[in-house]
Amino acid sequence: MPGKIAARTAPKETKAYAQAGVDIDLADSVKGGLKRTLARVGRPEVLGKAGGFGGLFDLSKSGYRRPVLVSSVDGVGTKLKLAFGTGRHEGVGRDIVNHCVNDIAVLGAEPLFFLDYVGMGKLEPGVFQGILSGMAEACREARCALIGGETAQMPGFYRTGEYDLVGSVVGAVEKPKILSGAAIRPGDKLVGLGSNGLHTNGYSLATKIFFNKLRYRMDDRLPGGEVTVADALLEPHLNYARLMLRLFSRLNTGSRSDTRRGNAIFGAAHITGGGFTGNIPRIVPEKCDVVIDTGTWTRPRVFDILATEGGVAFDELYEVFNMGIGMVLVVSPDAAQDVVRRCRRARQPAWTIGEVTRGKGRVHLR
Amino acid sequence: MPGKIAARTAPKETKAYAQAGVDIDLADSVKGGLKRTLARVGRPEVLGKAGGFGGLFDLSKSGYRRPVLVSSVDGVGTKLKLAFGTGRHEGVGRDIVNHCVNDIAVLGAEPLFFLDYVGMGKLEPGVFQGILSGMAEACREARCALIGGETAQMPGFYRTGEYDLVGSVVGAVEKPKILSGAAIRPGDKLVGLGSNGLHTNGYSLATKIFFNKLRYRMDDRLPGGEVTVADALLEPHLNYARLMLRLFSRLNTGSRSDTRRGNAIFGAAHITGGGFTGNIPRIVPEKCDVVIDTGTWTRPRVFDILATEGGVAFDELYEVFNMGIGMVLVVSPDAAQDVVRRCRRARQPAWTIGEVTRGKGRVHLR
Repeated sequence: MPGKIAARTAPKETKAYAQAGVDIDLADSVKGGLKRTLARVGRPEVLGKAGGFGGLFDLSKSGYRRPVLVSSVDGVGTKLKLAFGTGRHEGVGRDIVNHCVNDIAVLGAEPLFFLDYVGMGKLEPGVFQGILSGMAEACREARCALIGGETAQMPGFYRTGEYDLVGSVVGAVEKPKILSGAAIRPGDKLVGLGSNGLHTNGYSLATKIFFNKLRYRMDDRLPGGEVTVADALLEPHLNYARLMLRLFSRLNTGSRSDTRRGNAIFGAAHITGGGFTGNIPRIVPEKCDVVIDTGTWTRPRVFDILATEGGVAFDELYEVFNMGIGMVLVVSPDAAQDVVRRCRRARQPAWTIGEVTRGKGRVHLR
Repeated sequence: MPGKIAARTAPKETKAYAQAGVDIDLADSVKGGLKRTLARVGRPEVLGKAGGFGGLFDLSKSGYRRPVLVSSVDGVGTKLKLAFGTGRHEGVGRDIVNHCVNDIAVLGAEPLFFLDYVGMGKLEPGVFQGILSGMAEACREARCALIGGETAQMPGFYRTGEYDLVGSVVGAVEKPKILSGAAIRPGDKLVGLGSNGLHTNGYSLATKIFFNKLRYRMDDRLPGGEVTVADALLEPHLNYARLMLRLFSRLNTGSRSDTRRGNAIFGAAHITGGGFTGNIPRIVPEKCDVVIDTGTWTRPRVFDILATEGGVAFDELYEVFNMGIGMVLVVSPDAAQDVVRRCRRARQPAWTIGEVTRGKGRVHLR
């Protein structure tokens, strides 16, 4: 993305402004590294410069016939506290990108470009560089341009060393290929894609349990394992989007994605805030329930600790955490095996975890 | 935007989660009003529901032949402190939308849709409702869909009653109509569009001057006027985009906007962070300077106070604040009068404030 640096704006340093607390010369201390990092995260549709007030993406080059733009905005949430506590900022950069691209992938959309916002008290170049390199790496993997951003220095808003991190993604899907969930029927199978940890949800509760209730420290090892609590809790949100888009293009060859004809995958739910209970009903038709057998998959150890020592009720676990399943695909019964196999071949753990029944929009967990 | 409510996500309330500090039932206390507010801010291209993981905008309906997407992300910055102090939140909702749409209008882009992020400690429905109604109203005026948002409750990040507010806009422009500034030449005139206050920039310094140095209180009246300090400082960022897009469509009828043929307006600079000095060079060709006569326009009183009592050097004033000019258009010499007249007819104060000369990308202020 050469020449797009100016799309990231920051207050210009001046003398009185510096005295008012906004005093980092972003241009000198960070922009050099920024330029190198961002140069790796382009797409052919990104147009250079033109003032830098906005990022320019030439959609006419992308070859869409009936493009529907799909957008989402999200934050990393209180997981950031762990980045502050450990000084590890690259992972949360990945988190925000992957959360965003997964959110639009459930609708069948390919990510086109991403914009970030970092709000902080004073810009600390090392911290910022860490966040940015995580975002850039995740954008590169997602084939998504990092097209713009804003770094806001807000003295008195954020504690020293703290920040908020927000991302916004725009993707596109051909109109007839929007994955709406409308074709889902009783009898369809749920394929769960494994997560590697909490991703970006449930941290207010999880950190309370680990650090207040169970009195772990960041660098304690999890029982029976090699990883520390910090490692486990900081695992970045996985990108499911690339695999999903590949599956859709191979297995959903019907002319429309809201019918069953020619398609194998009828819906996808990203398991984020609200867990299973909050997210699966968002795509399942009103006259259906889903039944999930929670014994069908292997979960990261961190969830076992939350479940056994956390004092959280069974139902609530699945309302707050992803419990080891970051994405649920609803697939035709005869395709479930094939979908699972294709995921595993791509090194993405996957299991058939349940099915769709007649009902009224509820999630039953066994 | 009926049916799009689910695109705004928030943590689902659960028992242990509530004890961890995330305990507002957004669904009950806010979503009703949200639905009513957002129903007024649609566009025909917005597609209803489909899960709500992302906002859907059917660009194929917009009639673009060679669409370039133009995007920007921004925050309101420390102006928010004044919203906290006065309990007036609607204006900052307008601020963030107008800042964003102005940023992409300088490239010739029409805003299509907007997404917001509100990070707060605990959701206070009244505060949230105020922000949202300001955003909705500004989106309606900008003919921009409010397509999605995120409300993040982050206990321990933000002080009680405080929040950060971020917006992201996506617009579109026909590729040959991108306003790049490439056609600007020595001799062109600068038309300044009046601002109504600081918009969203320079607040860290301005509040320090007003409240620490000059010892004003929020509800003191400005010298010689009826408005209070709070009124003056909270004036929302103006939307210049509608007027600008109308001017472009009337006066830039050439087949390409990066040439002079058939066009009257060759560039536009949004005077935000960095003031005149930081923003005008972003669009002026490298071999040009601009010369601005600072006595040519009428400025809101707040700037006179900053200039006379603030103890800020003359140059710095124009590096930090918009000083009464929120947008600068670079126009052909024979069109300047007409552009000014058209602006004034639309009740937008405007003046010819300077001109382009040979040079090397500098801004000279007299």
